[in-house]
Amino acid sequence: MKTSPDSFKSRLKKVVETRDTLGGKIFDTTIQVLIVFAVVAFSVSTIPEISEELKSFLRWSQAVTIIVFSIEYGLRIYVADSKRWYIFSFYGIIDLLAILPFYLALAIDLRALRILRLLRIFELLKMARYSSAVEKYRRAFLDIKAELVVFIFATCFLIYVAAVGVYYFEHEVQPEAFKSIFHSLWWALATVTTVGYGDVYPITAGGRIFTFFILMIGVGILAVPAGLLASALYNIGKKNPD
Amino acid sequence: MKTSPDSFKSRLKKVVETRDTLGGKIFDTTIQVLIVFAVVAFSVSTIPEISEELKSFLRWSQAVTIIVFSIEYGLRIYVADSKRWYIFSFYGIIDLLAILPFYLALAIDLRALRILRLLRIFELLKMARYSSAVEKYRRAFLDIKAELVVFIFATCFLIYVAAVGVYYFEHEVQPEAFKSIFHSLWWALATVTTVGYGDVYPITAGGRIFTFFILMIGVGILAVPAGLLASALYNIGKKNPD
Amino acid sequence: MKTSPDSFKSRLKKVVETRDTLGGKIFDTTIQVLIVFAVVAFSVSTIPEISEELKSFLRWSQAVTIIVFSIEYGLRIYVADSKRWYIFSFYGIIDLLAILPFYLALAIDLRALRILRLLRIFELLKMARYSSAVEKYRRAFLDIKAELVVFIFATCFLIYVAAVGVYYFEHEVQPEAFKSIFHSLWWALATVTTVGYGDVYPITAGGRIFTFFILMIGVGILAVPAGLLASALYNIGKKNPD
Amino acid sequence: MKTSPDSFKSRLKKVVETRDTLGGKIFDTTIQVLIVFAVVAFSVSTIPEISEELKSFLRWSQAVTIIVFSIEYGLRIYVADSKRWYIFSFYGIIDLLAILPFYLALAIDLRALRILRLLRIFELLKMARYSSAVEKYRRAFLDIKAELVVFIFATCFLIYVAAVGVYYFEHEVQPEAFKSIFHSLWWALATVTTVGYGDVYPITAGGRIFTFFILMIGVGILAVPAGLLASALYNIGKKNPD
Repeated sequence: MKTSPDSFKSRLKKVVETRDTLGGKIFDTTIQVLIVFAVVAFSVSTIPEISEELKSFLRWSQAVTIIVFSIEYGLRIYVADSKRWYIFSFYGIIDLLAILPFYLALAIDLRALRILRLLRIFELLKMARYSSAVEKYRRAFLDIKAELVVFIFATCFLIYVAAVGVYYFEHEVQPEAFKSIFHSLWWALATVTTVGYGDVYPITAGGRIFTFFILMIGVGILAVPAGLLASALYNIGKKNPD
Repeated sequence: MKTSPDSFKSRLKKVVETRDTLGGKIFDTTIQVLIVFAVVAFSVSTIPEISEELKSFLRWSQAVTIIVFSIEYGLRIYVADSKRWYIFSFYGIIDLLAILPFYLALAIDLRALRILRLLRIFELLKMARYSSAVEKYRRAFLDIKAELVVFIFATCFLIYVAAVGVYYFEHEVQPEAFKSIFHSLWWALATVTTVGYGDVYPITAGGRIFTFFILMIGVGILAVPAGLLASALYNIGKKNPD
Repeated sequence: MKTSPDSFKSRLKKVVETRDTLGGKIFDTTIQVLIVFAVVAFSVSTIPEISEELKSFLRWSQAVTIIVFSIEYGLRIYVADSKRWYIFSFYGIIDLLAILPFYLALAIDLRALRILRLLRIFELLKMARYSSAVEKYRRAFLDIKAELVVFIFATCFLIYVAAVGVYYFEHEVQPEAFKSIFHSLWWALATVTTVGYGDVYPITAGGRIFTFFILMIGVGILAVPAGLLASALYNIGKKNPD
Repeated sequence: MKTSPDSFKSRLKKVVETRDTLGGKIFDTTIQVLIVFAVVAFSVSTIPEISEELKSFLRWSQAVTIIVFSIEYGLRIYVADSKRWYIFSFYGIIDLLAILPFYLALAIDLRALRILRLLRIFELLKMARYSSAVEKYRRAFLDIKAELVVFIFATCFLIYVAAVGVYYFEHEVQPEAFKSIFHSLWWALATVTTVGYGDVYPITAGGRIFTFFILMIGVGILAVPAGLLASALYNIGKKNPD
């Protein structure tokens, strides 16, 4: 059913879905501030030294945040042209996931709640909804999706080969650090991505020469995303000059 | 000899070499799943804590995998237009290398088998056979082959110079970590690639100032592959717009 | 008021603001050398082992430098076409901030002086004033400003997600290193930027698999600035061929 | 004086300076192999565990190499069209520096010889003389020289700012690791280049938050060479399509 331009629902829709009116800007900014507040509150609640008063305040503020987010979720369904489309859209799912754990905690055991809380951090992505530069990234990403999949596959392959190789060279000398290929994967990950924690590293000449070859290939493979992005972004800029 | 389109060999060829028919898709997917299974099984078999039952299962599954791969190899030779071409093609050699170690183990000592097993991980590359994005990478790589060789040469040169320099500055203060130029190469590799394990590092003022110059050059050289790839990928995209 | 081309103020203006005359080159180089000297002197003064004589010399040379910079600041205001414009320009503010802490120290407590001294290092930026290549960077930066903001936002988001995840996986096993989400942020920062100090790192299988996913995304996100810059610099070069 | 095409000097010139004749290829390859041998021999001679026999062999082989290089240097001067041009050319100077230390050691003290030997590693650059891809890099490098200088300046500036900041935050808590701004430069270098040895790192909240800001800028600055190279290489490829 089409609503008349001046009906209550139509005006509410403008406030909830756009930033064109003053009301829309206030609504939008309030939600964004609340998301940041919820994330900070959640982070602060993990500090073991905080006082009982702060803990209690955080619990209460969490409940208030969830109620506001629930009302927002209801409003978004109410004003949506296609309710189904909103509910199953990317942000519709995130909006639901952000409030669901709280209500589930009323029914199921609190232990399980802990992992569900983790989902709330996706609320931060809501802020990206209105940025225009995000659109440029989204299109560049779509242009190079297939190449990125091959890149990730190649990186995983190189990490696995690195793990097998270092296991072969180091297993006997360092049986604890390179216990199995699975244990060696940790070193391989830190090496190929050039993080290099330094908790484990090869000590045999063979293992170190092998690391040289892995890093020569790794340095080349790590350059792939920059190359892909540079070419994709330039193509996008050429088609849409501003 | 040309085969008639409906002969058994012609139909088998379609199943083995293409993904056009349902049979081809099933054949292809089965082989891919088996490859992943073989790699996982090999990795699991290196965990020292696994039970005797699992070890025995892995040994048996390995034998079954090899038999299937051997049949596949035979089929590929049988249906190939040019048998010689297939056998000496990149994937033909990999297909053979994947099964050879198992049969060799029946004839020669089991100790030597261990290193040959390593070759099996190349089976993973089989999966790249059907990807179209791989073709784009292959052409970009061919375009910048000569430049990549110079890049690898320059990186090796910088690593060597770094090793000589750090040996000169640190040898006397840290005679164990920087015992010789060869020992210093390990630090040089970890530094130039920015891995930085932190197991060895210069402690003299001279060695640290030298590290500064090496890293200034290293940071510039490490940017080369990204620059090469960006320019090559853009050129390829310009010639073949999709 | 417009000054006649040969007046004293007009000739002074040429010396202070440009490098066209011999006097301008001498003035400019003197200031640049003094800036480098002031920065080196400040750095040397932090070495605890320096003698009382050197300390006293550094204190005196600091006073002399500040007096020269104060005269320069006065001259720049005197010769500026619009005094207000100079005073509130980027370099006008830096010129003032470079000398202000010294005079403030005469009035307020010396403890607070310490943090104000830090501002002096911005004097180094003065040297960039005359470089033409800086202009190219400035324009490239303006072209990709919005995309860089999204990049920084995405990096911060990934670092936060990494901190939450690693806290969840490692908190119970390493309660000291991953005490809270805030403590975990330190590991997340060092990991996503691939610095990898190695002071803290995950030890559980879950934490390490989580690190793998964070690094796969991180390696892609870290490639964004290179891609943006490559495309922006190429566009700038195309519009202004030299 | 112009030589006749078939004179001895003219034929010698072809052998020494080009790879057009069989003699030229043999001469060139011999020199290249000798350079690699000299570098390997020098590296091996630093291993403390080598036997007296090997040491003596390396000393003798070093003398033979130097004599061959001296003859080559003499021949290059003899066949050069302009002797002065060759002697003061880049490779002419390297050719001389590669043999000079040996002869100087006959006259001056052997202690000082040690640092002069270091120069020999530049002989490796001789191999780049004939590569065509090197020319492409050389032109790309010339195109972005001014921008690279600004990049190096900006990196040094960021490293210095990082050192001052970390000194301010960490000096009192870690007086040994962050003794002065000069000591803090070591941490700053390892952090901005993302090497991250992990021998020193901030432990205060302020120092870690400061590290976050330094790394956000550092990650952007480190992307500059890749961006510059991508744009320069694409421009070169466009002007000279192959």
